[in-house]
Amino acid sequence: MLARELEQQIAAGVLRPGDRLPSVRQTCASRGLSPSTVFQAYYLLESRGLVRSVPRSGYFVAARPGGVPLPEPQTSEPQFGSQPVEVNDLIYACLGTARARDIVPLGSAFPSPDLFPLDRLRRALISSTRRLKPWNMVDDLPPGNLRLKREIAKRYLCQGFAVTIDEIVLTHGAMEALNLCLNAVARPGDAVVVESPTFYMALQALQRLGLRAIEVPTHVREGIDLGRLSQVIELYRPKACWLMTTFQNPLGSLMPEAKKRDLVELLARHDVPLIEDDVYAELYEGKAAPLPAKAYDRRGLVLHCSSFSKCLAPGYRVGWAAPGRLAGEVERLKLMTSLSGSIPVQAALAEYLQEGGYDRHLGSLRSSLQAQRNSLFDAVTRHFPDGTRVVRPAGGYFVWVELPVGVDALALHRTALAHRISLAPGPMFSARAEFRHHIRLTCAQQWDGTLERATRTLARLVDDAPREGDHTPPTI
Amino acid sequence: MLARELEQQIAAGVLRPGDRLPSVRQTCASRGLSPSTVFQAYYLLESRGLVRSVPRSGYFVAARPGGVPLPEPQTSEPQFGSQPVEVNDLIYACLGTARARDIVPLGSAFPSPDLFPLDRLRRALISSTRRLKPWNMVDDLPPGNLRLKREIAKRYLCQGFAVTIDEIVLTHGAMEALNLCLNAVARPGDAVVVESPTFYMALQALQRLGLRAIEVPTHVREGIDLGRLSQVIELYRPKACWLMTTFQNPLGSLMPEAKKRDLVELLARHDVPLIEDDVYAELYEGKAAPLPAKAYDRRGLVLHCSSFSKCLAPGYRVGWAAPGRLAGEVERLKLMTSLSGSIPVQAALAEYLQEGGYDRHLGSLRSSLQAQRNSLFDAVTRHFPDGTRVVRPAGGYFVWVELPVGVDALALHRTALAHRISLAPGPMFSARAEFRHHIRLTCAQQWDGTLERATRTLARLVDDAPREGDHTPPTI
Repeated sequence: MLARELEQQIAAGVLRPGDRLPSVRQTCASRGLSPSTVFQAYYLLESRGLVRSVPRSGYFVAARPGGVPLPEPQTSEPQFGSQPVEVNDLIYACLGTARARDIVPLGSAFPSPDLFPLDRLRRALISSTRRLKPWNMVDDLPPGNLRLKREIAKRYLCQGFAVTIDEIVLTHGAMEALNLCLNAVARPGDAVVVESPTFYMALQALQRLGLRAIEVPTHVREGIDLGRLSQVIELYRPKACWLMTTFQNPLGSLMPEAKKRDLVELLARHDVPLIEDDVYAELYEGKAAPLPAKAYDRRGLVLHCSSFSKCLAPGYRVGWAAPGRLAGEVERLKLMTSLSGSIPVQAALAEYLQEGGYDRHLGSLRSSLQAQRNSLFDAVTRHFPDGTRVVRPAGGYFVWVELPVGVDALALHRTALAHRISLAPGPMFSARAEFRHHIRLTCAQQWDGTLERATRTLARLVDDAPREGDHTPPTI
Repeated sequence: MLARELEQQIAAGVLRPGDRLPSVRQTCASRGLSPSTVFQAYYLLESRGLVRSVPRSGYFVAARPGGVPLPEPQTSEPQFGSQPVEVNDLIYACLGTARARDIVPLGSAFPSPDLFPLDRLRRALISSTRRLKPWNMVDDLPPGNLRLKREIAKRYLCQGFAVTIDEIVLTHGAMEALNLCLNAVARPGDAVVVESPTFYMALQALQRLGLRAIEVPTHVREGIDLGRLSQVIELYRPKACWLMTTFQNPLGSLMPEAKKRDLVELLARHDVPLIEDDVYAELYEGKAAPLPAKAYDRRGLVLHCSSFSKCLAPGYRVGWAAPGRLAGEVERLKLMTSLSGSIPVQAALAEYLQEGGYDRHLGSLRSSLQAQRNSLFDAVTRHFPDGTRVVRPAGGYFVWVELPVGVDALALHRTALAHRISLAPGPMFSARAEFRHHIRLTCAQQWDGTLERATRTLARLVDDAPREGDHTPPTI
């Protein structure tokens, strides 16, 4: 009722892009409604992209002219069946260009270092280094820094489930953890389920190990399609699933917790291990962290992988796996691929975590990222042409954009680069180079005039782009 | 002439174990010989294990009672052909036990941290951390610290050959470098040549990638048999060789430089890449570092791998590959397996190397290790029973011992552990679990009464060991 009324006011232009909605308290008072009723109406409008919340400021009208929200991206329909993975040079080319400092990094996966407590980390590194004893250099090889493992285990415990210190294998970032876990569950020629679209590093890992990919449709808000997953498990007997259940890269999808439980049960019935890439888990909105699928695992089948690279210490390259019943195997693989982590940086992170400022840092990082996501989402909504589809992600670094049918993402990538703007074209995220009219944009930088202008330029390039085969159905 | 005379005096007990030989100057003066003649005689006696040199002290009689030197270990005769690698639990069990602090670490591959300039490294880490800029945390991801690459390139240049900065891929220790190089040259099912015996981590790497091993006889002083290598290349078309040309683990062999040149030429004729594991290269005796095979490579076929773990900074886990024409491929594999090295530790090593104390440290490390190798070799010579074969290695961490025929190295390993002494049994170093009556002993710890006693205890255990099938030929 309230929601519909506000929607009409937005459509009529009474409430204009950027306008602040009346506060919840004001609305309760003026209309005699309960706060929960007002919140519900605002949430509904927010989920439809009509308004957005700004931490400690309130709700604002989203900025699409006329107030008609862009629809959300459609779920892909990848072919049934498994296939070998042959990642093309595109990925490397994109990764390379996205890093040059004179290019607006809308295609980068690297966050701005300004988001992190680098001074405090530096102090922790210095003070822990001062206290390092010579034998630490040898004793901590293979098992890794015990204090750091304990701090990681404590964080699991705070989320309400237990991971023992012994289960934790410290690694060189989540990337190594994921690779080791994949290596532990699959042999060359085996098939592994991935999301469609999926993180390109997953595709690279599959290729490197000679594995086949089974791509499963993945919803832009709710994650992988469990019905289809169940079918492909029965049909193709995959050796594992590699999924990002929370703030998926590139979609930003967050699988609801009940669905995570169902996922774990489905996999347990078929004894299929889940490699859960959970590096964005800390970057949520609201009060509590979404639980990972790992929280519902009773059989030791979930190999949970994470790191400090996205939320605390990029450049330190410290991550871990909690590989359930495969912990021993992953530990062995770690030993034989790179022996051990770097002792001084592990000790530094242990020190930082023990000092206790991590949660405060995370709180402010979450606010910054939320504001940046909102700004990017708003700018896309405001500037991109009709036919664009986008949804506001509930966490993480990325906004996934479906361009108007016929706009070629790779051509757009090249044109944008000529304008010194990077983006991550959709075909990077598929074993079949699908998502030809999709792009992933990054909001891991402080939003400013440069990013705003770059998004506007991108929008103009999309608008100007030749549209091939307008009359054919989408190629996803 | 002089050599024979001294040998007779040793055999007759005129010169007794531990006695100092007359100095070169004295001998020149007393016999009217040129220094080079005297040196030649002493070298000959040393190569036969009758005497040993102690830096800045002179030559001493080796300590075998009666002065009869132990013969050197025989070269293995591995079967022709390639085979899948199935590393058994033995390796992990041995690696685990070798690390407990209350066990005398004759089986450990880890050096004593007391050998390293950990205080100066610590200061370099602290001062470089102070100067790290936020953007270093992101800019150095993938390519790695440029200053460190430059320092590494300069060290190649000092050896008289050029490796460009662009060719260097920084890794998490040599282990990762070797794994990435192997991954770059071979696909599952391919065959790779390894030495017999070979470093167990090479076997583990082959197994992990689903590769087959071709084991080639390797001489305890001069390295791999080039005749046999040529044959297996023609017969089995291996995709690569993985060799340690300098101070091989476990043999301690040092391939002469002319042989290295022949090796590179042989491989170039057949276009077979060489993965050269060169982590012990700095641990030589005498004035100049032995050149690696890489120095003779004109075709970009040598993938040279090394690290700072054995000679400067254990626990930091910083290594590199110089993969020749495969540099781009290895860099990509690095990117997709663990993204990048740890920025703070790379910066610390760059700082340490630029400060310029590295060569002084290496000089003192080489003296310490030489003394430790001599002490271990002497203790084995003095205490082990007849039938033992051993040779004084010219560098590195290890002494390879062939036990009397019929003494089972695995049984000895178990018995020794019960006496709180570790050793590395020969079957760890072979895809067929051969070298059943061989052990590798480590001299990477300061020699002291504990090590002396442990070696004596080991000798007694060897002497007391049941000898199975005394009348059968050796099982190598």
